[in-house]
Amino acid sequence: MEIKLLNYTKDPDGICFQTAKICYQSKSNDKEGLLNKIIKAGHLSILEHASFTFLIKDISRVASHQLVRHRIASFTQQSHRYTKATGFFTPEKIQQDAQAKEIFNELTKKALSVYEELLNLGLPKEDARYILPCSIVSDIIVTMNARELLHFFTLRTCQKAQKEIQDIAIEMLKICKKEAPIIFKNAGPPCTRGRCYERKPCEDINQIRHFFAEL
Amino acid sequence: MEIKLLNYTKDPDGICFQTAKICYQSKSNDKEGLLNKIIKAGHLSILEHASFTFLIKDISRVASHQLVRHRIASFTQQSHRYTKATGFFTPEKIQQDAQAKEIFNELTKKALSVYEELLNLGLPKEDARYILPCSIVSDIIVTMNARELLHFFTLRTCQKAQKEIQDIAIEMLKICKKEAPIIFKNAGPPCTRGRCYERKPCEDINQIRHFFAEL
Amino acid sequence: MEIKLLNYTKDPDGICFQTAKICYQSKSNDKEGLLNKIIKAGHLSILEHASFTFLIKDISRVASHQLVRHRIASFTQQSHRYTKATGFFTPEKIQQDAQAKEIFNELTKKALSVYEELLNLGLPKEDARYILPCSIVSDIIVTMNARELLHFFTLRTCQKAQKEIQDIAIEMLKICKKEAPIIFKNAGPPCTRGRCYERKPCEDINQIRHFFAEL
Amino acid sequence: MEIKLLNYTKDPDGICFQTAKICYQSKSNDKEGLLNKIIKAGHLSILEHASFTFLIKDISRVASHQLVRHRIASFTQQSHRYTKATGFFTPEKIQQDAQAKEIFNELTKKALSVYEELLNLGLPKEDARYILPCSIVSDIIVTMNARELLHFFTLRTCQKAQKEIQDIAIEMLKICKKEAPIIFKNAGPPCTRGRCYERKPCEDINQIRHFFAEL
Repeated sequence: MEIKLLNYTKDPDGICFQTAKICYQSKSNDKEGLLNKIIKAGHLSILEHASFTFLIKDISRVASHQLVRHRIASFTQQSHRYTKATGFFTPEKIQQDAQAKEIFNELTKKALSVYEELLNLGLPKEDARYILPCSIVSDIIVTMNARELLHFFTLRTCQKAQKEIQDIAIEMLKICKKEAPIIFKNAGPPCTRGRCYERKPCEDINQIRHFFAEL
Repeated sequence: MEIKLLNYTKDPDGICFQTAKICYQSKSNDKEGLLNKIIKAGHLSILEHASFTFLIKDISRVASHQLVRHRIASFTQQSHRYTKATGFFTPEKIQQDAQAKEIFNELTKKALSVYEELLNLGLPKEDARYILPCSIVSDIIVTMNARELLHFFTLRTCQKAQKEIQDIAIEMLKICKKEAPIIFKNAGPPCTRGRCYERKPCEDINQIRHFFAEL
Repeated sequence: MEIKLLNYTKDPDGICFQTAKICYQSKSNDKEGLLNKIIKAGHLSILEHASFTFLIKDISRVASHQLVRHRIASFTQQSHRYTKATGFFTPEKIQQDAQAKEIFNELTKKALSVYEELLNLGLPKEDARYILPCSIVSDIIVTMNARELLHFFTLRTCQKAQKEIQDIAIEMLKICKKEAPIIFKNAGPPCTRGRCYERKPCEDINQIRHFFAEL
Repeated sequence: MEIKLLNYTKDPDGICFQTAKICYQSKSNDKEGLLNKIIKAGHLSILEHASFTFLIKDISRVASHQLVRHRIASFTQQSHRYTKATGFFTPEKIQQDAQAKEIFNELTKKALSVYEELLNLGLPKEDARYILPCSIVSDIIVTMNARELLHFFTLRTCQKAQKEIQDIAIEMLKICKKEAPIIFKNAGPPCTRGRCYERKPCEDINQIRHFFAEL
């Protein structure tokens, strides 16, 4: 997995500050103060005027299926109907378990060889790919505005999210924090801004809060 | 694959007719005439007041990934993070080819057994499932309004759409035509309402037009 | 102002319960328990499978401009480009102040007469209407799903919302509570479910909580 | 009315070209050729990765009510609940008719004086503004992606659209054409790309086509 910021609205904090000032006819010079107040008050529509476009390389079908469930976003995904599948993603927990890793990799190899056989039998790529493991990867380009990104980070940087999309979300958040430090200052799972809403909260919740504060 | 209409706005043609009459302050009694005029003129927002909820059973991850790309819709999908995967979908072209079918089924069995092994090694379902073929099925509930359904049918009942989602879309269209014969009268691929926009149009285009007219 | 439920998904609580059961492969018979748990956990996408269509008669342009800002909704509004404007809305506080009411009504009458004059001068309705007060009313049909309605009620039944749309929202909530008592049980402004987020909370907050509990 | 481009995705044609290349795994250097092909084929999701943010100053409530009906967009509008209303918009046809203009302006002045009187009687701005003509103006910031802009231009640059929003849309289109000449090359009313779908097409349709070609 590799994430690249392809494009974004120039000076995201600035454009949102400017919008807020016009909306409230304010002459404020305190960018951080005004934006913080607006975000805390939940007037998040202001944040829709800044957007970010990411290229996510080598994302599995498992994670991309979760990603495209976010409807207030734009996606362009490499198609396996017409382009040939090649790489695969191995979940962290499988990578860390020698025995699991071995049977996982072996089956992946077999599946890829059956895929090739099906193509040789004259079947179209779009049908042959049904035999490939869900770990099969592709590239996807995603554009979200800052409001939707805050929501995405709330759901997907949480320890309860699946590890692959969690890693993707954390990487995206790092990039956003660099380009828009005010908007994304308190972004992260719910526990970073207050209490946890999960039935079984993480044991190391303070460590998690620390991680996102330092990100 | 099995499709069931779980719920829908009562009398979809009627509610859209009623809405149109209020909007245009019309006293018309000609439901079919007025709705046809509106649809032809492209004033499709009227059709958003009727919606349909379907249960699609045993849809593969390949097709559900395509399905959830439609953003003006509501989805609830059975999760493979927590529930165990069981069934698989075999594409029509693989079912029709004895040799392909054999290697496809054999690999599926092997993958399922590796999945079980991974679970026995203590790996969580959400990680083990990466090894399962994309043919793995689940159930999904989808709600779309009539306007979005018309758009969905335009894209997905076309012969160029992948066969699995094409079959799902045609089945849904049959159901819609029964409950809302006026709204969905001319639903189907672009060729049913005019010319084809594909680079290589189907050879049997008149047969296709006939098929949708008779659906 | 008059509000009429034109249509809705049959048995909204039931369809959402059924959806939740399929999603979680649950055999629960406890409709209220399961739905409450889901709503508290914030898994609100389940609630998108039920929707409601309202006819709002005699809504002012002030309130309809606020209403159509809700983007996850469908609207059909009577046009003043082609149909003649007739009625006007008087805000409650103006109705309660004899002097204000008099100058308000007098100016309204004058404006209506200038509107007629402009039409007589040959100007199209769509241009003449620029002179009409923002209190001019029209009819609008709105469809929202239950998730968006909960959000709409959170914002618009609050004492800080403008009185006209507040009254509309409360009327809609009453109707929703009757048809889907479980989903809308705790609907209302934020204070009905916890603390108030406004800079200056209402003084009679307990009275407000009581009002929505009894609605 | 005044329109200013506040911000936009850097190099809109370029980012869409880059996205298309990744999606189709193409090595093409022909930006114009590939983008034209994609737009003609209707694969418009590619165009969602570029967005534009405009400040529209002094838009009337008539036009802003029409503008915010576009739901795939982000809006931040100056509020008349809390800020005082000042300016007014005079429709072109009224400006061109001395008699109409006189009664229009006179009534506007009277309305503004009643508005001030209501404020002096202690009524809040949000209630007093009901008496103001729909011509009352405010500022609005709007962000749309290139796909939605193409749709917006199709509807709102048409001669059948109301003149005020038509002028706004044409101004926005001019700006877009400058920054993204390939994407917006054929933007405009339906007649610029083919036939007119209106019941009564314009008489001077070739002149209109010429106007948009030269824009």
